[in-house]
Amino acid sequence: MKSFCVIGLGKFGSSVVKSLINSGHEVVAIDTDAKKIDDHKDIATHVMIADATDERVLKNIEIDKFDGVVVAIGRNVQASILTTMIVIESGAKNVVAKATTDVQIKVLTKIGASKIIEPEKDAGNRVADTLTHPDIAEYLDLSDDYSFAKIVVKNTKFKGLTLYQANLTQDYQVNVAFIKKTDGTAGIGKHDTVIDLDDVLYVVGNKQDIEKFSEII
Amino acid sequence: MKSFCVIGLGKFGSSVVKSLINSGHEVVAIDTDAKKIDDHKDIATHVMIADATDERVLKNIEIDKFDGVVVAIGRNVQASILTTMIVIESGAKNVVAKATTDVQIKVLTKIGASKIIEPEKDAGNRVADTLTHPDIAEYLDLSDDYSFAKIVVKNTKFKGLTLYQANLTQDYQVNVAFIKKTDGTAGIGKHDTVIDLDDVLYVVGNKQDIEKFSEII
Amino acid sequence: MKSFCVIGLGKFGSSVVKSLINSGHEVVAIDTDAKKIDDHKDIATHVMIADATDERVLKNIEIDKFDGVVVAIGRNVQASILTTMIVIESGAKNVVAKATTDVQIKVLTKIGASKIIEPEKDAGNRVADTLTHPDIAEYLDLSDDYSFAKIVVKNTKFKGLTLYQANLTQDYQVNVAFIKKTDGTAGIGKHDTVIDLDDVLYVVGNKQDIEKFSEII
Amino acid sequence: MKSFCVIGLGKFGSSVVKSLINSGHEVVAIDTDAKKIDDHKDIATHVMIADATDERVLKNIEIDKFDGVVVAIGRNVQASILTTMIVIESGAKNVVAKATTDVQIKVLTKIGASKIIEPEKDAGNRVADTLTHPDIAEYLDLSDDYSFAKIVVKNTKFKGLTLYQANLTQDYQVNVAFIKKTDGTAGIGKHDTVIDLDDVLYVVGNKQDIEKFSEII
Amino acid sequence: MKSFCVIGLGKFGSSVVKSLINSGHEVVAIDTDAKKIDDHKDIATHVMIADATDERVLKNIEIDKFDGVVVAIGRNVQASILTTMIVIESGAKNVVAKATTDVQIKVLTKIGASKIIEPEKDAGNRVADTLTHPDIAEYLDLSDDYSFAKIVVKNTKFKGLTLYQANLTQDYQVNVAFIKKTDGTAGIGKHDTVIDLDDVLYVVGNKQDIEKFSEII
Amino acid sequence: MKSFCVIGLGKFGSSVVKSLINSGHEVVAIDTDAKKIDDHKDIATHVMIADATDERVLKNIEIDKFDGVVVAIGRNVQASILTTMIVIESGAKNVVAKATTDVQIKVLTKIGASKIIEPEKDAGNRVADTLTHPDIAEYLDLSDDYSFAKIVVKNTKFKGLTLYQANLTQDYQVNVAFIKKTDGTAGIGKHDTVIDLDDVLYVVGNKQDIEKFSEII
Amino acid sequence: MKSFCVIGLGKFGSSVVKSLINSGHEVVAIDTDAKKIDDHKDIATHVMIADATDERVLKNIEIDKFDGVVVAIGRNVQASILTTMIVIESGAKNVVAKATTDVQIKVLTKIGASKIIEPEKDAGNRVADTLTHPDIAEYLDLSDDYSFAKIVVKNTKFKGLTLYQANLTQDYQVNVAFIKKTDGTAGIGKHDTVIDLDDVLYVVGNKQDIEKFSEII
Amino acid sequence: MKSFCVIGLGKFGSSVVKSLINSGHEVVAIDTDAKKIDDHKDIATHVMIADATDERVLKNIEIDKFDGVVVAIGRNVQASILTTMIVIESGAKNVVAKATTDVQIKVLTKIGASKIIEPEKDAGNRVADTLTHPDIAEYLDLSDDYSFAKIVVKNTKFKGLTLYQANLTQDYQVNVAFIKKTDGTAGIGKHDTVIDLDDVLYVVGNKQDIEKFSEII
Repeated sequence: MKSFCVIGLGKFGSSVVKSLINSGHEVVAIDTDAKKIDDHKDIATHVMIADATDERVLKNIEIDKFDGVVVAIGRNVQASILTTMIVIESGAKNVVAKATTDVQIKVLTKIGASKIIEPEKDAGNRVADTLTHPDIAEYLDLSDDYSFAKIVVKNTKFKGLTLYQANLTQDYQVNVAFIKKTDGTAGIGKHDTVIDLDDVLYVVGNKQDIEKFSEII
Repeated sequence: MKSFCVIGLGKFGSSVVKSLINSGHEVVAIDTDAKKIDDHKDIATHVMIADATDERVLKNIEIDKFDGVVVAIGRNVQASILTTMIVIESGAKNVVAKATTDVQIKVLTKIGASKIIEPEKDAGNRVADTLTHPDIAEYLDLSDDYSFAKIVVKNTKFKGLTLYQANLTQDYQVNVAFIKKTDGTAGIGKHDTVIDLDDVLYVVGNKQDIEKFSEII
Repeated sequence: MKSFCVIGLGKFGSSVVKSLINSGHEVVAIDTDAKKIDDHKDIATHVMIADATDERVLKNIEIDKFDGVVVAIGRNVQASILTTMIVIESGAKNVVAKATTDVQIKVLTKIGASKIIEPEKDAGNRVADTLTHPDIAEYLDLSDDYSFAKIVVKNTKFKGLTLYQANLTQDYQVNVAFIKKTDGTAGIGKHDTVIDLDDVLYVVGNKQDIEKFSEII
Repeated sequence: MKSFCVIGLGKFGSSVVKSLINSGHEVVAIDTDAKKIDDHKDIATHVMIADATDERVLKNIEIDKFDGVVVAIGRNVQASILTTMIVIESGAKNVVAKATTDVQIKVLTKIGASKIIEPEKDAGNRVADTLTHPDIAEYLDLSDDYSFAKIVVKNTKFKGLTLYQANLTQDYQVNVAFIKKTDGTAGIGKHDTVIDLDDVLYVVGNKQDIEKFSEII
Repeated sequence: MKSFCVIGLGKFGSSVVKSLINSGHEVVAIDTDAKKIDDHKDIATHVMIADATDERVLKNIEIDKFDGVVVAIGRNVQASILTTMIVIESGAKNVVAKATTDVQIKVLTKIGASKIIEPEKDAGNRVADTLTHPDIAEYLDLSDDYSFAKIVVKNTKFKGLTLYQANLTQDYQVNVAFIKKTDGTAGIGKHDTVIDLDDVLYVVGNKQDIEKFSEII
Repeated sequence: MKSFCVIGLGKFGSSVVKSLINSGHEVVAIDTDAKKIDDHKDIATHVMIADATDERVLKNIEIDKFDGVVVAIGRNVQASILTTMIVIESGAKNVVAKATTDVQIKVLTKIGASKIIEPEKDAGNRVADTLTHPDIAEYLDLSDDYSFAKIVVKNTKFKGLTLYQANLTQDYQVNVAFIKKTDGTAGIGKHDTVIDLDDVLYVVGNKQDIEKFSEII
Repeated sequence: MKSFCVIGLGKFGSSVVKSLINSGHEVVAIDTDAKKIDDHKDIATHVMIADATDERVLKNIEIDKFDGVVVAIGRNVQASILTTMIVIESGAKNVVAKATTDVQIKVLTKIGASKIIEPEKDAGNRVADTLTHPDIAEYLDLSDDYSFAKIVVKNTKFKGLTLYQANLTQDYQVNVAFIKKTDGTAGIGKHDTVIDLDDVLYVVGNKQDIEKFSEII
Repeated sequence: MKSFCVIGLGKFGSSVVKSLINSGHEVVAIDTDAKKIDDHKDIATHVMIADATDERVLKNIEIDKFDGVVVAIGRNVQASILTTMIVIESGAKNVVAKATTDVQIKVLTKIGASKIIEPEKDAGNRVADTLTHPDIAEYLDLSDDYSFAKIVVKNTKFKGLTLYQANLTQDYQVNVAFIKKTDGTAGIGKHDTVIDLDDVLYVVGNKQDIEKFSEII
């Protein structure tokens, strides 16, 4: 179990808090808004109504003792920068900051943020991918050429074949990394795994290869 | 080449437009804000300053002829719902809507949105994952038990072995789906692929297995 | 005695509450505005200062147990839609919602409102009717062709005749359904009901017939 | 054909304009908001962007020549009162004003408005009626004791009877003023009118009588 | 001693309160603003923080029992009209209202205000008079032709003369109604009153006559 | 004919402009508000949309050449003080400034305003006078002891008497300075002026004497 | 020890308070903002939440007894002028006021402020000086021709010389008033003071002389 | 002649521009406010209405070519930081930034500002100095112990003495660096400079020494 501090409890910060708590970690959640603090008092390990741009606040909770700090303030660029500055000045490690503009990212980098997140931009990229690959349920770029995709088996030709028999790596240059079956079971792709209609395949491959494969499978 | 319509040009909508255009598609971008339209006039195929909650606007551009429509209005819940309603009533297909609250998601589902996106919540989940798995560069849940993870080779013991020799599927129950090498080359994981220090492995496996594997590799 | 819940205490909601209480029913009245709640605390059976877009609020008062729920929020389209959504999701029956725009009506219909009211539009129609029929005190459309109208007897020719003698159904194709007399008494129109000057007749008939009748009576 | 002037083009005023135009009259529509004027320029006979609290505006259009003037300004109590004052001072006849508070009604009465409308309050009363009479589709109070109601025939016992045979006036003390049949035809209630299942009866009667009748029919 | 009620404690209302108290009367002062009430709590006989547009407020203090009511609300036309309406409806006598526009004056007259005051307009007229008559210290129009003016004696020719000797009524057609002397004494103008340099004369006369007189005296 | 400059065209400034123009003088009217300038463009000799706190504006119109300058800005204390400062610094004579608070009056005096006007306070004093002297139509304090009052003749005892016969100066110690008769004629009070019922007398006298006189006349 | 009153606790006022307290004086700090008062409660001798434009406030603290009063209100011109007026009227000595515009300075001078400060303008002048004299660390104008400047010794030629040996007054017409040495010691410039590299010299001289001197030293 | 760019034309920026222009340099002045640009168009060498947080703006004017850049944006912390970031990223030298808070100073330092100015704080320090040293006209701290002060000669004992005769360095440990005489002449302090009454001495010395000296001179 590790301990984290999340500053800002908007949708993004709130989601970080819940995920970390669900993974069994300790989370201190800070916001200036009493209502948001109230909404998280039964979720986070500790909550605090406080303005993190006031240096004494972060000193008091020994911000440098946490395993990671998330500055989940995005829209208020000034508060985002000043808070991140104070967090880093206080000696904190693993400082993740949310950003909304390019210059903000540069400033956050200069003052020493470990990782910078742009939720809206990332989500936009993913939506564009799903729109352009309607036959592929989910899609993740691994490099300029290769992707990881989630594809449903619709072609009866593959029904009942093992991955070895289907010979997909040879014929289509794609690697079936994982399979989810309609009965709820799942597992990594092995030679003797049998394919059925409506099975969900998670494959890795060259983008054109995946595109073609998604149309015949 | 397909054609899409993106309504709302905030960070999310703007990112959708750029991704779609980069993938070679045609995009009509709509916003009520002249400045945002100006910023996208050299990016999108067509831009329009218009209020999409006015039914005549979407009628005029034949919204039902697009291959997909993205209602990228999140914060203004009312505009988000009313625009999505009009888009769907106009017969549009593949309507993706951005949402920020749970009730908004329910309403968007009831009125027929094909897919609903929550960028802040999704990003929060991913940040939590990277914070809790510091040895794993990127991490994607495939099911409750299985994950897809990006791990860097740090252990000299595996240097120079082929995937077949390393015997990872047997010993650690993980499937190396893809490898990125330090010289920039990359490819799907095959029997004769050779592992080097600092190679980036994309593996699929049971979560505990991946966790253990990330500590020894 | 039945029990109802009215959410929103503007002029419309307040009028619903008073009418229901006057008819002997139990009413729980909810608003976010303390002043409005104070104004209704001696009128409604129970009052609550609460934000109905918070799902827990409606859960707590068991919104599904009421004989009917009126979402009397009109101007704030977002609150109107979200509240109606939550009310319906909670299993409530007979959900009446106030609307102010056409798209709002479509959304409310899609999410399952039993009945949708447009006070301003309805009142506008009625005012137009009274302006165009100045001899007719009140006027209600029953169909495209037939109306129900309130007309005052001004022609001495009919003074002292019974409805049977006046022979109005035959001569003017109108049915005198109800009569209010100047002495305050009133009753349904019967054969032996006597007509006097200044009696108020409530008649049903074809619109042209009523128009003509209103000019001779 | 008559001519009317409608001042204020909110939902109420707009509805008055449309109804009057539909009835074949001439309407001059006035508002201070260019967008609203634009929305009505193809609906009203003439439109004007003007502030009716400026006395010269109403002088110029000879407001005293219209057959009726509707001051459809409700929420802005001050503009409502001042405009009504100027309209009446200018010699206009049949001045109908919308009101939202009791004191406003008193002031409008004192300065001479012919008729005062309260849309929200009226709608509230009607909704309360329909909620308390779920078996009755529509309901209109004629006096403290008598009502006009719209009731659907559900009891097979009455199927095929003429109104004379059904003897409703005698047995239930209600007068069937009008009938709408399922085939779309309609007419005033006569002795030989035949009743069918699902026919819609418009009846007049004592409130208790109608209530009882609605439960057996 | 009489009792008065002053509603509204801006500069005008405050000045009314102080003048009435100085004249030995009882004054109830009402305003919605706690600070203003606090400023008058040691000046007025009674003070009340209350909204006079709420009918119950004025009922409770028996507004009809006062010898006069001043509605000192000028800028908020709506509050001015509604309060005056309620005051008059409550049976109050001698209702004085402050106004700022011409239509407001008409409405206040229609609803029955006894007297209507326009401070800014009146002050403007008086300033214009003093600017155009620099030799005359103060000036009051009695009719289109006649004025009442305050003029200082500067001409040694009149020094030591009685009013009878000065023969001003004959020679200049002006009536010296009142004299203030430099020693502080004052009195109505009599035949034997002696004029001195720097005496202040209050004269009545035709405007041209006063103008001429002011230049020679 | 003289020339004046009026800065600020609210109710007070507008009234100054109209009075001066009516008296045949030239007036330059200045305001920052285009609408107010438009309203006075046919009234004042010249109008200017300009911010008088910008020193160049007043330099350009040679503010020191006018016979008088009225700074009719009351509510915006800052603009009132700064404008008056600039006007005086520019060498203007006869600078009249409107004030609303006591400290503002002190500052305006210190920086050299010739005369300072408080419209609301003055009007308040006059209203208090009329309320406390209901039998006296108008009332003006000349000193602590003496007043000038307008009183209507209601006692038939004085009907037909000349002022000499009525002997009012002797019996009541009041001086009838001016008389307005019901036929519209008017004149200064002379020995042979005849009194009639409903004549309006303008009298000067000791306050108690006027009070008594107003009750018997 | 003296006592001072500082009105307004923005950056400027706060800095005055801290400097005075550091110099061992007593300071009463006044502001209308509770947060600012809270921030200074452990710094100033006494703090007060109060509106200094209310004359009673300054009377109560006997503003005329302080050794000096700083009106540190700059941006709100009205409050700055009115407060300064009240402070001076109350008999206070040494009244320092902050100003932001030229007309404000004139008004503050007229009403009697002892000293008027323009922080932004002064800082601007100093920055311009340092930008134009990059070799000179700090720079202060003593007259149009002479300056006081802080210059670092960079030329090895002067290393080890006494001021007498260096003969700077003769050769460069500059007077070395003060020297700060790299070991932290400092002192006024005497004949036997030895110069070292990186010593900081504070010199007085003609501007051209200093400029030349800064380039060779 | 050098060239500078000043971003932000508030009091501070405007003062920088004027000083630099007065010293004969070239200045490009940038602000987002058209009015401010207009006020400086005859002062600065070039003016630009532009938002400096837009990276293209500074690229276009080749911000890296200037001899110095002043980011004169203080109050808007976000714009201050982002603009300074872009200026530095663009390769500009000698970047001076104005700051208002301590954290802002830290951020500006981290992103590389050459010099950071706090006008309000500096001015506050100087005012405190003059208040605590009323006998000393101006005062500048050189170190914790030493100051530079401007003192007027009031003691006749020193009248007519040369600096050598007065022996001030010996007796009072102060160094007279500069003298301004009442006839307007001035010069650095030399042995044969003669002291007169009302001469202004600029002296350097230990703080206690200067304090004592200011009391006897």
